[in-house]
Amino acid sequence: MEVTKKNFPQILEELENVIPASEFLAIDGEFTGLNKGEEVTAFDTPALYYEKLRKGSSEFLIVQFGLCAFLYDEKRKKFTHKAYNFYVFPKPPDQRGTEKCFKSQVSSIHFLVENGFDFNKLYRDGIPYLRQDEEKRLREKLEEKHKASSSAKNCSNGDANDVIPVPADKAEFIEDMCTRIKNFLSEEGKEELTLEGCNGFVRKLMYQEVSERFRGVRLETRKAAGGDRILVASRLGTNEEEQQRLKDLQLAEIQDLDSAVGFSHVIRMLSQSGKLLIGHNMLLDICLIINQFCTELPESYLEFKQIVSFLFPRLLDTKYMSFCEPFKSLVSSTVLGHLQKTLSEPPFESIKADPAEDGYGYSADSDKYHEAGYDAYVTGLCFLTMVQHLGLKLTSEKLLLSASPLLKPFFNRLYLMRVLDHPFISIDENEPELPRDHVFHVTFPKEWKTHDVIQLFSPFGRVFVSWLNDTSAYVSLENRDQAKLVLRTLTQSDTYRVIPYKRHQMLKQPSPPSKKQQTKPSMKRLRTEKDMVTGKGGIGTIPEEDEELEVPNQGVLWHELISKCFLQLFLILFLTLPCLIFGLTFLAIYQVMYTHIHFLSLGG
Amino acid sequence: MEVTKKNFPQILEELENVIPASEFLAIDGEFTGLNKGEEVTAFDTPALYYEKLRKGSSEFLIVQFGLCAFLYDEKRKKFTHKAYNFYVFPKPPDQRGTEKCFKSQVSSIHFLVENGFDFNKLYRDGIPYLRQDEEKRLREKLEEKHKASSSAKNCSNGDANDVIPVPADKAEFIEDMCTRIKNFLSEEGKEELTLEGCNGFVRKLMYQEVSERFRGVRLETRKAAGGDRILVASRLGTNEEEQQRLKDLQLAEIQDLDSAVGFSHVIRMLSQSGKLLIGHNMLLDICLIINQFCTELPESYLEFKQIVSFLFPRLLDTKYMSFCEPFKSLVSSTVLGHLQKTLSEPPFESIKADPAEDGYGYSADSDKYHEAGYDAYVTGLCFLTMVQHLGLKLTSEKLLLSASPLLKPFFNRLYLMRVLDHPFISIDENEPELPRDHVFHVTFPKEWKTHDVIQLFSPFGRVFVSWLNDTSAYVSLENRDQAKLVLRTLTQSDTYRVIPYKRHQMLKQPSPPSKKQQTKPSMKRLRTEKDMVTGKGGIGTIPEEDEELEVPNQGVLWHELISKCFLQLFLILFLTLPCLIFGLTFLAIYQVMYTHIHFLSLGG
Repeated sequence: MEVTKKNFPQILEELENVIPASEFLAIDGEFTGLNKGEEVTAFDTPALYYEKLRKGSSEFLIVQFGLCAFLYDEKRKKFTHKAYNFYVFPKPPDQRGTEKCFKSQVSSIHFLVENGFDFNKLYRDGIPYLRQDEEKRLREKLEEKHKASSSAKNCSNGDANDVIPVPADKAEFIEDMCTRIKNFLSEEGKEELTLEGCNGFVRKLMYQEVSERFRGVRLETRKAAGGDRILVASRLGTNEEEQQRLKDLQLAEIQDLDSAVGFSHVIRMLSQSGKLLIGHNMLLDICLIINQFCTELPESYLEFKQIVSFLFPRLLDTKYMSFCEPFKSLVSSTVLGHLQKTLSEPPFESIKADPAEDGYGYSADSDKYHEAGYDAYVTGLCFLTMVQHLGLKLTSEKLLLSASPLLKPFFNRLYLMRVLDHPFISIDENEPELPRDHVFHVTFPKEWKTHDVIQLFSPFGRVFVSWLNDTSAYVSLENRDQAKLVLRTLTQSDTYRVIPYKRHQMLKQPSPPSKKQQTKPSMKRLRTEKDMVTGKGGIGTIPEEDEELEVPNQGVLWHELISKCFLQLFLILFLTLPCLIFGLTFLAIYQVMYTHIHFLSLGG
Repeated sequence: MEVTKKNFPQILEELENVIPASEFLAIDGEFTGLNKGEEVTAFDTPALYYEKLRKGSSEFLIVQFGLCAFLYDEKRKKFTHKAYNFYVFPKPPDQRGTEKCFKSQVSSIHFLVENGFDFNKLYRDGIPYLRQDEEKRLREKLEEKHKASSSAKNCSNGDANDVIPVPADKAEFIEDMCTRIKNFLSEEGKEELTLEGCNGFVRKLMYQEVSERFRGVRLETRKAAGGDRILVASRLGTNEEEQQRLKDLQLAEIQDLDSAVGFSHVIRMLSQSGKLLIGHNMLLDICLIINQFCTELPESYLEFKQIVSFLFPRLLDTKYMSFCEPFKSLVSSTVLGHLQKTLSEPPFESIKADPAEDGYGYSADSDKYHEAGYDAYVTGLCFLTMVQHLGLKLTSEKLLLSASPLLKPFFNRLYLMRVLDHPFISIDENEPELPRDHVFHVTFPKEWKTHDVIQLFSPFGRVFVSWLNDTSAYVSLENRDQAKLVLRTLTQSDTYRVIPYKRHQMLKQPSPPSKKQQTKPSMKRLRTEKDMVTGKGGIGTIPEEDEELEVPNQGVLWHELISKCFLQLFLILFLTLPCLIFGLTFLAIYQVMYTHIHFLSLGG
């Protein structure tokens, strides 16, 4: 079911029944971009991964939200589904609102268009939304405005002194407009008079002149088709009529704000239902859902986990699930389409779930990948198939929610793409400290290939190379005991430089990520990205060969050291110099005096 | 004529004749946003205005470019036109390219959609473009790649040592794929074999296994419909066939890059033609044209003017023109639609220009405002009508280019919206130093209205108030002599604070503009924006009334002063302390010695 702002009110009402009745809910989002910040690397900790994701993606928008509710049909003893495909887009700002900006990534836009995404529909009919903090602020502003307009009624024209003299070059135009209003008032029958061709300044002058010259005329600024603003004059009613008019206007404004909360209602319903939410590779979805519909993503990783846990207490990521045994050995690729195909063949027995109602769903072979509703539907099917493969019976209802010990290991763990040793965020557990002593940051000439890096580390056994850009990579040792040997054995070289991972992280901290490296990915980097899709890369067998290695080149540290030491030197000098001068002076004077005394003594 | 990447090659060829044959060219752009940086104020200098525009708008895109060529039909002694409406959008990045991001402003997107803009067409069929620096970089990369692939042919498998062991959980899948390739090779007739379900890591393994196990097989990664990557196996040809294949491939890549320059060719043609370019309120157009198709906007304002002058030596902004006499007194609003209407009535005599060919233009009442081609067309008509009103004859060709002294004052001056006293950038003149001694920055309580500000300044005559946000505004005196008196008369107050404009600018310099103020415009600010459309605002008659005024509150300055003085104090102390110590020590010793000597002398 496609949902735009046109049919959203009905669907929202419907969801009030569908969500509580469902066994679990599958979700998926389509975004205007993925990550334009610093690239993640194979050795990022979950906390660092989150930080990069938060910084790199929070300006992108979810533009399509897929929700697929899976229901259990007790009569037919089968699962059915209801799928919704929401188009979501911010409302244009009115006088109460904040002007919103968002980012798009060219490749993501092309990807969506290629998959049939309708941007005209999105921009024209997208369902608006507000975060709770935004809603609160707007409600306060509206209340303030309503109070002010009520009190303005009671006090006499407070701004009477604030009169703008009509400039000579506008006088004729203003006179002409006023004559037209005068004629309009004297004629019966016409309800409104439209005055076009007035820019902002002229409109301001008109408000002023009309309130001075006429009684019983209301002037309003309206938006004409095409966005131009026009002035509309009409007759004032009786006092009671005007009071009622004001009330109606204020009520309409409140209703307008209510409806502006729009899609956020759906997210609030999902959150409040406490139902199991399924997604495929769902970390970015969860981040953008929170940021767009709930609250700004926090800087603190722990706070982020608390927020997720609070909003969505039961999550399951099918990408993470299929990455774990017993599925890992049976699944060649965890890309959603590939996974579905694998799960449709033995040893798996694919589950089907018909639409619960006509017009509300897909069939398993609809092949509408990258339409959010369809991806959510397929994710749910994959989940059911894997659950069945684990030996859980799908025939009895409420089974999935009864936290079976077979399912428990997969709950609340969100998959981290490209990460090597701990490729998931665990929402309600503390992550272990990840050892990085066996990882090194290596810089080298542009001409080097993986082979050259492997050569360099050949005395220390097999290594894993994770490219960062044309001239640097992280290298980890398979045999971790060799780590100290690497540092001891490395000797200086003009061609390459090896420093421990942790020191590289420390050195990176103060300066922002190099913009140049971000915006100009190289061939090698693009290659690496592909290699890293499954979090794996080139572990090479290394020929035994000697190569000159360097000790960590400390060139980079000097700047830091100098600037840090300068103040200390300065302070030391400041404290010792007076003492020195004092000492020397004392000696000098003593010398002179001594001679003097001596002389006097002798002479005396 | 609507131009997308489908008909662009023909149109480009056509323009090679149309542009040189035209009398002048009118342009217009539609953007994804306007300005999301710091707001311009009524007292910005042209240089400051440019800086704000550069920072606030350079991430937005021109998505539609309107070009209307005005030609002179010698036979009919009339102007004709050819209008083009180009959809422009970046190409998705390939392996050579840079991933591009852009910003959109929600209100601009809604505005375009309301005016019938087709975003699906834009994203699917938009004409690509490259700046010259981007083109150069890509050409270098491509050459490098072609060189590398030629030399790779000549050396034996250099990365032979870089072998990835096939993980156990992927072994079966890889074996299965290799069996399929083996079968494919033994069968005749089939040209290609498609291998689906391979993610990046599996593809890498496949390349490795195939090159080890088979001879005469080519493996390629292709993008399937929907964006998924698939592997395709095919038979290798003879050595000559393969050489030719490589050549063809490289040629195709070069042609691909040539075509990627796309719309930038049009801008280069406009620039090289040296023709008069007309636009309405064209500063932002010029900025975004330069930034998107030519070169990154420079930080230096002077450099910007040099670049504009170099690229587009003859510009005319009809908004600036209509803002000057003799038009100013006759035009109530310079909004393009309003201007066209005004110019269609006496005392003006509107000019018509029929399409030069069917399918190439508009009629004067097409009413397709905010379609870039139409806006360009209307701009050109307005220009012709104003030119005729100046007394220039339109009957003889080449007239417009012959820099008539009547037209000269309008050349190369770009209108600055909302600026009070110097509302234009003069591309080839130095701007005068703008006096700001009579302008003050005032902060006050949230409850204040224009009236209260006027009251505060009432002893000094009439003022102009330019709101900055809820609690601050710039105030300028009509009677500039009063400026010193303001500073002298102002006394301390807890409610408001008045400081000279220049000092406020100075204080602003070190800290970036307050984000909070940018993203949360208030009612008052929105109102001010409207008032300022024509660069005019509330000059109020001020009642004579006494009010306690404050001297510039220097609270804010203390922090700065302290931090600046601290170093100086420190240095002074550092230099004088030793002298002091020296002096005191000397005195002390001398005292002791003197006593000693005295004693000795006496005793001796």
